[in-house]
Amino acid sequence: MKMRNSSIDGVRGRFFDFSKSVGQQSNFEGTVRYVEDGLLLLKEGHIEWFGDWSEGREQVPEGARIHEYPDKVIVPGFIDCHIHFPQAEIIAAYGEQLLEWLNNYAFPAEKQYGDKSYSMEMAEVFVAELLRNGTTTAAVFCTVHQQSAEALFAAAQRVNMRVIAGKVMMDRDAPPGLLDTPATAYDDSRLLIEKYHNQGRLLYAVTPRFAPTSTPEQLAVAGRLVQEYPNLYMQTHLSENIAEIEWVQELFPDRESYLDVYEHYGLTGPRSIFGHCIHLEDAEWTGLFDTDSVIAFCPTSNLFLGSGLFDLERARREDVRVGMATDVGGGTSFSILSSLSEAYKVMQLQRQKFSAFEAFYMATLGGAEALSLDHLLGNFNVGKEADFVVLDPAATVLQAKRSEKSKNIADLLFALMVLGDDRTVFRTYVDGRLVHRRE
Amino acid sequence: MKMRNSSIDGVRGRFFDFSKSVGQQSNFEGTVRYVEDGLLLLKEGHIEWFGDWSEGREQVPEGARIHEYPDKVIVPGFIDCHIHFPQAEIIAAYGEQLLEWLNNYAFPAEKQYGDKSYSMEMAEVFVAELLRNGTTTAAVFCTVHQQSAEALFAAAQRVNMRVIAGKVMMDRDAPPGLLDTPATAYDDSRLLIEKYHNQGRLLYAVTPRFAPTSTPEQLAVAGRLVQEYPNLYMQTHLSENIAEIEWVQELFPDRESYLDVYEHYGLTGPRSIFGHCIHLEDAEWTGLFDTDSVIAFCPTSNLFLGSGLFDLERARREDVRVGMATDVGGGTSFSILSSLSEAYKVMQLQRQKFSAFEAFYMATLGGAEALSLDHLLGNFNVGKEADFVVLDPAATVLQAKRSEKSKNIADLLFALMVLGDDRTVFRTYVDGRLVHRRE
Repeated sequence: MKMRNSSIDGVRGRFFDFSKSVGQQSNFEGTVRYVEDGLLLLKEGHIEWFGDWSEGREQVPEGARIHEYPDKVIVPGFIDCHIHFPQAEIIAAYGEQLLEWLNNYAFPAEKQYGDKSYSMEMAEVFVAELLRNGTTTAAVFCTVHQQSAEALFAAAQRVNMRVIAGKVMMDRDAPPGLLDTPATAYDDSRLLIEKYHNQGRLLYAVTPRFAPTSTPEQLAVAGRLVQEYPNLYMQTHLSENIAEIEWVQELFPDRESYLDVYEHYGLTGPRSIFGHCIHLEDAEWTGLFDTDSVIAFCPTSNLFLGSGLFDLERARREDVRVGMATDVGGGTSFSILSSLSEAYKVMQLQRQKFSAFEAFYMATLGGAEALSLDHLLGNFNVGKEADFVVLDPAATVLQAKRSEKSKNIADLLFALMVLGDDRTVFRTYVDGRLVHRRE
Repeated sequence: MKMRNSSIDGVRGRFFDFSKSVGQQSNFEGTVRYVEDGLLLLKEGHIEWFGDWSEGREQVPEGARIHEYPDKVIVPGFIDCHIHFPQAEIIAAYGEQLLEWLNNYAFPAEKQYGDKSYSMEMAEVFVAELLRNGTTTAAVFCTVHQQSAEALFAAAQRVNMRVIAGKVMMDRDAPPGLLDTPATAYDDSRLLIEKYHNQGRLLYAVTPRFAPTSTPEQLAVAGRLVQEYPNLYMQTHLSENIAEIEWVQELFPDRESYLDVYEHYGLTGPRSIFGHCIHLEDAEWTGLFDTDSVIAFCPTSNLFLGSGLFDLERARREDVRVGMATDVGGGTSFSILSSLSEAYKVMQLQRQKFSAFEAFYMATLGGAEALSLDHLLGNFNVGKEADFVVLDPAATVLQAKRSEKSKNIADLLFALMVLGDDRTVFRTYVDGRLVHRRE
């Protein structure tokens, strides 16, 4: 993070973003904004001016530091709506579906984060990996340990990155050393909220892992926190795996559905983010809509753990917000580009369409809407926070060859997402500063 | 290909391969060969000696050129059993399933290969891309144009690479400029066979694209060629997509199944490679077994085009040989590693297991068996052709982190396939010579 002080005055290049919400109808007409030779002027981490270079050049002050990227494509920073900080080191773990995977890989890995210095070391690795992949905003699960959240918030703060995170609450069905209690979960979360929520660009999410690992008492405590602090986020898992759903039914026989467990404890709402949502019942779709709750779509994870195929068209029909997510370490890549590519495959298997515009919308402004951050970021509108990514259409020999042949910006973006990986991310800017430079 | 003359005497490092066939039972006991500090001695493109460094060091002649790779993993070269040379530039083409994709993307791209110099230029790109991804043997579809096959064979010959290829036969249901006739298909194929089959390491495959684009007369001609030349290969597509299958039924109402079309014209057999085979009927499985025909499994393509999920467990039960394949440009990557990773996902969605050993077996010795080349290549046995790949477990920051944590060689290989891409391929050797060096 040596580059954090190199704040600049502007960027010139080819820009692509969405000027406004596409709404439920996914109407891209009049929202797609493509500026072939554009200028973005920055001030104190915000966008001061955006438009054609030919119009803007006159207002560029003498001696201004303008970074120029003539052969690249500059897009708003990517938004990852569901990722686990303490699972980076168990990415690509062999052989299991969700519940066995948790016991065999995730839980043992997460135990290490009880160690403060390990947490701090891995938080730096984690944030660097996000930036390397062009992710500038993320909703992050830490471990049950308070210090894991402290470490993550500190690492994000060092680059002034907008991060939503929370310590996991988990008071049953996990190994000793990974359990809290309703009381400690409440106290520790509260302390973290007071210390980090709305401090700079940091935001807190109450984070019960998922219904099976929290007692009813703990879920009640989670609901209490959400009520006590306005604008707090809530993040958890919902309906990822068939065995998981059956387990929830056994544990909560009085609840009508998996979602109803969360609903019952006051954990649904416009800032509630539910990871996966693959096997939802009709009533759960309705419940998500009624409470304006949000889904995080995790395609690489859903394929890798064999969880199933998320029904994005249904989500559109039901008018439920959906954000893109990697779900590392169940997911196999930190790259939102790779996630979009895998999302396309998930949709193809269901004979659904997923255009490059829809994909990049989900990765940027759509993700901001999912996280209720679209008033702050997600595109290049004046006043927005200056998080953006410089993509290289010629990052590899094959990408260069394919990009040459691309017919229009939609085609180019599609090739970028299908063939792209961290190499495609040439530069990442957060808060108006260069924070990642591809080697 | 500047490095083609840099032949060496040996390689020292960590080696992984399979010493013999695992057979239908997939019994890996006694077949997995892992040499932590090994030596591979080469002579005239073949393996002269393989074993522990401590045993072999004494026979290393004075002044021998030994390449040392202490932190890497050396495996036999990867084998791609189904790939289209003239589709590299349309990889990642948006939005369609098979038949529309052919009309909108593949056919227009293939038309360009009527131009000899374009074919030659792209053949160099194609072979370089294979080598960059560690693929040292491939079964390749060219276009209908004789010169496309000439260009491909010439490019492969320059690095003395073992390539099976053929000019596509296609005399209907394709645009003008991409059609031959039964007579020209016969004559042109014959000319290519005479010129290239068994010349050096080159092999010819009679290549009717698929049943819908060949008239019965042309399929008969294809069968005639297979009969006239012993040990010729035959490659085509089978049962990839539901609409395709229905079309075949309409076109060949007298045939009992899609496979039966090929069977009827004498196109099944131990050197017949059928791409995809996703929606096979029971009788077709039996037919593949009875004729000892081979399947090419193309996971990235099957997901990208939404074709469906290949049933590898069924193939094992039916005792049908299966090779791994990228199917570029329907597939989204030249990387066999990425294909193994996507294969894992395909299997997970069907609750099937796919271990790292099974995966690497399919990519190497299993692939050689599928292509009836296991007497020549696929492992480090003495006398085999010296094609191998040096893999870097620390190719990226994330891979390095994950590799550090790996518990054993199986775990390391699994991480390599799930996180790997062309960067993982540090060096590629073909015919005992260094032919690709990662930048």
